[in-house]
Amino acid sequence: MPLNPEQQAEIDELRATPQPTLRAVSEGMEAHLYKAYDVLDHGFIRVIDYMGDDAAITQAARVSYGKGTKSVQNDEGLIRYLMRHWHSTPFEMCEIKLHVKLPVFVARQWIRHRTANVNEYSARYSILDREFYIPSPEHLAAQSEINNQGRGAALQGAEAAQVLEILKTDSNRAYDNYEQMISEDGQAGLARELARMNLPANIYTQWYWKVDLHNLFHFLRLRADSHAQYEIRVYADAICKVVADWVPAAYAAFEDYRMGGVNLSGKGVDCLKRMLAGETVTQETSGMSKGEWREFRALLDD
Amino acid sequence: MPLNPEQQAEIDELRATPQPTLRAVSEGMEAHLYKAYDVLDHGFIRVIDYMGDDAAITQAARVSYGKGTKSVQNDEGLIRYLMRHWHSTPFEMCEIKLHVKLPVFVARQWIRHRTANVNEYSARYSILDREFYIPSPEHLAAQSEINNQGRGAALQGAEAAQVLEILKTDSNRAYDNYEQMISEDGQAGLARELARMNLPANIYTQWYWKVDLHNLFHFLRLRADSHAQYEIRVYADAICKVVADWVPAAYAAFEDYRMGGVNLSGKGVDCLKRMLAGETVTQETSGMSKGEWREFRALLDD
Amino acid sequence: MPLNPEQQAEIDELRATPQPTLRAVSEGMEAHLYKAYDVLDHGFIRVIDYMGDDAAITQAARVSYGKGTKSVQNDEGLIRYLMRHWHSTPFEMCEIKLHVKLPVFVARQWIRHRTANVNEYSARYSILDREFYIPSPEHLAAQSEINNQGRGAALQGAEAAQVLEILKTDSNRAYDNYEQMISEDGQAGLARELARMNLPANIYTQWYWKVDLHNLFHFLRLRADSHAQYEIRVYADAICKVVADWVPAAYAAFEDYRMGGVNLSGKGVDCLKRMLAGETVTQETSGMSKGEWREFRALLDD
Amino acid sequence: MPLNPEQQAEIDELRATPQPTLRAVSEGMEAHLYKAYDVLDHGFIRVIDYMGDDAAITQAARVSYGKGTKSVQNDEGLIRYLMRHWHSTPFEMCEIKLHVKLPVFVARQWIRHRTANVNEYSARYSILDREFYIPSPEHLAAQSEINNQGRGAALQGAEAAQVLEILKTDSNRAYDNYEQMISEDGQAGLARELARMNLPANIYTQWYWKVDLHNLFHFLRLRADSHAQYEIRVYADAICKVVADWVPAAYAAFEDYRMGGVNLSGKGVDCLKRMLAGETVTQETSGMSKGEWREFRALLDD
Repeated sequence: MPLNPEQQAEIDELRATPQPTLRAVSEGMEAHLYKAYDVLDHGFIRVIDYMGDDAAITQAARVSYGKGTKSVQNDEGLIRYLMRHWHSTPFEMCEIKLHVKLPVFVARQWIRHRTANVNEYSARYSILDREFYIPSPEHLAAQSEINNQGRGAALQGAEAAQVLEILKTDSNRAYDNYEQMISEDGQAGLARELARMNLPANIYTQWYWKVDLHNLFHFLRLRADSHAQYEIRVYADAICKVVADWVPAAYAAFEDYRMGGVNLSGKGVDCLKRMLAGETVTQETSGMSKGEWREFRALLDD
Repeated sequence: MPLNPEQQAEIDELRATPQPTLRAVSEGMEAHLYKAYDVLDHGFIRVIDYMGDDAAITQAARVSYGKGTKSVQNDEGLIRYLMRHWHSTPFEMCEIKLHVKLPVFVARQWIRHRTANVNEYSARYSILDREFYIPSPEHLAAQSEINNQGRGAALQGAEAAQVLEILKTDSNRAYDNYEQMISEDGQAGLARELARMNLPANIYTQWYWKVDLHNLFHFLRLRADSHAQYEIRVYADAICKVVADWVPAAYAAFEDYRMGGVNLSGKGVDCLKRMLAGETVTQETSGMSKGEWREFRALLDD
Repeated sequence: MPLNPEQQAEIDELRATPQPTLRAVSEGMEAHLYKAYDVLDHGFIRVIDYMGDDAAITQAARVSYGKGTKSVQNDEGLIRYLMRHWHSTPFEMCEIKLHVKLPVFVARQWIRHRTANVNEYSARYSILDREFYIPSPEHLAAQSEINNQGRGAALQGAEAAQVLEILKTDSNRAYDNYEQMISEDGQAGLARELARMNLPANIYTQWYWKVDLHNLFHFLRLRADSHAQYEIRVYADAICKVVADWVPAAYAAFEDYRMGGVNLSGKGVDCLKRMLAGETVTQETSGMSKGEWREFRALLDD
Repeated sequence: MPLNPEQQAEIDELRATPQPTLRAVSEGMEAHLYKAYDVLDHGFIRVIDYMGDDAAITQAARVSYGKGTKSVQNDEGLIRYLMRHWHSTPFEMCEIKLHVKLPVFVARQWIRHRTANVNEYSARYSILDREFYIPSPEHLAAQSEINNQGRGAALQGAEAAQVLEILKTDSNRAYDNYEQMISEDGQAGLARELARMNLPANIYTQWYWKVDLHNLFHFLRLRADSHAQYEIRVYADAICKVVADWVPAAYAAFEDYRMGGVNLSGKGVDCLKRMLAGETVTQETSGMSKGEWREFRALLDD
């Protein structure tokens, strides 16, 4: 369980005290505020704050004095138009702030998305908790045989058991030794900024992460994708759920144009036209490499 | 007057409808929301939205579950510490969205601040209004004689009158011709995206501008500075007033450490130490160039 | 002619003095260095410097100690793979620095691309030249009747003549008055930072613009597109030519996947599958709006 | 030793093949290209590429057609002026690309500097080497007693020995188990993207890191500072050495105004003026908190 009673009490207190505001309010998002949604075995995401709603996107696109929206239907059409034509700046007018608890190796992928604001729990200043990500058996996957950067089927039997045993034992030993090294009981105690180096990448860290909606969509497109590593994808999936309630029209457009959409190369478009004209196109006649052809066929077949 | 009655009515409507929220609320900022504060002869700034308050800064710095603030005094001390030691990320956790109406030549300086989100009124799509910045006589300054990039005293008499006459006449003629070129009355009508090229840089444009507090402080430090061009400084000054009400502790720290603070070079520090030890230091013995020495003395004398 | 003899002599001098370097050298790019390629009536682009070549992209992708390339063919395949799968960071490892002379209204579109470095000629500090963009007759387009943000056919006869007359006359009058206002002959002279406000948006400015290859490709995809305004598209086209010689493999991948490629929505993919299965799909049965359907058909028909 | 013979041969090959270029060349930097400078026990920095030199800074500031430099002395004066007045864009016109090998816990601090381009060795795709940072005894520091985020004196005797023993043993066991889990010898083999989670934060990673000179100076100011963690400071120190040879004038200005310079608050300036006027100022009469006063005194006393 990721939260202790004291933390839960702090969250409950925040949810108990609505205040009046003149700002745009997303009722769908208010229902999520501060709540911790579990991800992996000890992680979570929590919405700490947000700015804007669907109407804020069209209001900015129109640079208007008032709400900038005459009808919900018009707004949805405009949002779809903006998404389809890669107008990014109106989506940047919404902002979200999350509190995320996540394993360090997930954090290292996440931080590559540079257009965001981050405050991470400091292991120079503070002592980390004894919390490590141990995969559930069904996610203990073998190395993929066809893709260097991918997973195959779940490990079975003794191999799976041994891996779990290694991960648990090494994590705990590393943490025992971390505690031993920083202990000031009968010794000076190693500096925290040094002791942390003994901790493995499955230890949990946490941070505040703030990002605008355009850059969040970019993050979600890459990280909620089926090729993303499972352990970051589950965070992206959890975020998708709150975004769908926050800005329903923008999220629907994102789903249709980005998550459900595809990119075709010029060669791909040529092949399609020939196929629609009745020609049978093969990899040999496509002008594509084998890898490209396989990916092209997958778009049309799956 | 920058707003017409319809625009004012839209603003009044937005201010009339408070809604409950669970988010952090800055009461000082709520009082400013949507109101247009006049700047120059036709411009304004208006706060459209904001995220966070003083407590949000320390909450992020501490990566806490609740409000992250035990006492206002502790928060102020922490905010001053963060500002003094150039910790930028906690200040990035607050965000503001402004609607600004400003002359194009001011907009071109403003947009150099890249870490911000902008949606500008489109002169490709829409027709611009006949509104031009005409300086008031006291701001009709002569070229500085000592600084290529500066102003001297206000122009006087016939020269001032002639300049005002030129600015008004040329602006209006340019706009007359803009209207004439795009007119579809008895002719095809020039494309708006082309016709706009006839309009001078004192025409007003407007945009939505969203920025985090850290980058806003950077903008304000440069643009509210006495060396900034007067026409952008008045915008920065107007923004300072709302920021002071939004995040009073952060703004006070900003005033002390950034606006009121100074940067000394290593040579400057050496000189100071010698001066405090009783030595009389001159430009010749300072190791500084004449320009540096003049600026160094100005810090201590003004 | 954009360059005066003195400027041309400075460029010739730079091109006359090769020096040895151990860095990656792109021979295709060396041929372009410093040369001014004319754009519009007074503008140009010039490559001032560059970093990296095709091999630098794969070298970074592989984090290798040497050149990181065993064969040109492997490099091309990897570059195509990286482009196809939206790996942006290896393309960021190449950098280009341009000197661009361009009308102010083009500069204002250009500067919206924020991830770049810019030093612009300062009209606060210096006096601008009397150079204005006057469209050639074939580019003097009417407002589009179907697209608020577009152009129709070229203006004809008396209307075209009148527009050209207005643009020329207003530009010159504005400049005459600019000169008059800043003149210190018998008067104080208005500050340059103020006088510039009288100049229209077709006056030329110039800047140094530095950008990495990933962000340059993003710029080119939007600005070399057929929907971009003609006056910025010709700059993008000129840049495309030098990039094609600088990083031929990366540019070929960009052309196939970005410029020649298309994005389909989830609805679009569904329709395609039905069409490939022999179904006749119409707008009514497509699930798309009329605008989306028109754009979808255009992808397959053009 | 960080490099194996094959890697060294690749570097030697690159250094053996100068080619002519028309670009700006920094002779001081050419001497450093590709060479690996040792940092910590297994790390290094290597310059892979660079763009620009001191003259490129002033050339961009002047937006000039040629080299933009009439005399070295003028260039130095202009560079000092630009640095003193926080003109950042001319310094952004120089760029450097480094190959860095560094412990993961250092990489996690480093990556917080977002305005840079990074390609990191992928532990999803590849197998990491058995290389761990083990501090030398003199850098095995105790936790600071006065600063939560700092170090005290080096550990002594049995405590130091035990810490070293823990770090070595845990690292090696973690790596043994990493190898065991990914082994495909008689078992499926755990996916690399999962197995890496068992590795501690003192394992070495490597990346290509590209940054402009302005942002590099910002990095160096924070990371070459005496308050930075020792393990990242040594990287910053190594980079300082090559930058000093690359752009000597800019680096000298950086040293004087940033590294050797100080920031005083408005209160600090007030106190200084009073002290220069002969008054004895104490913390009580300074208006500063105890912490601020201690830091203020340290500036003047050290």
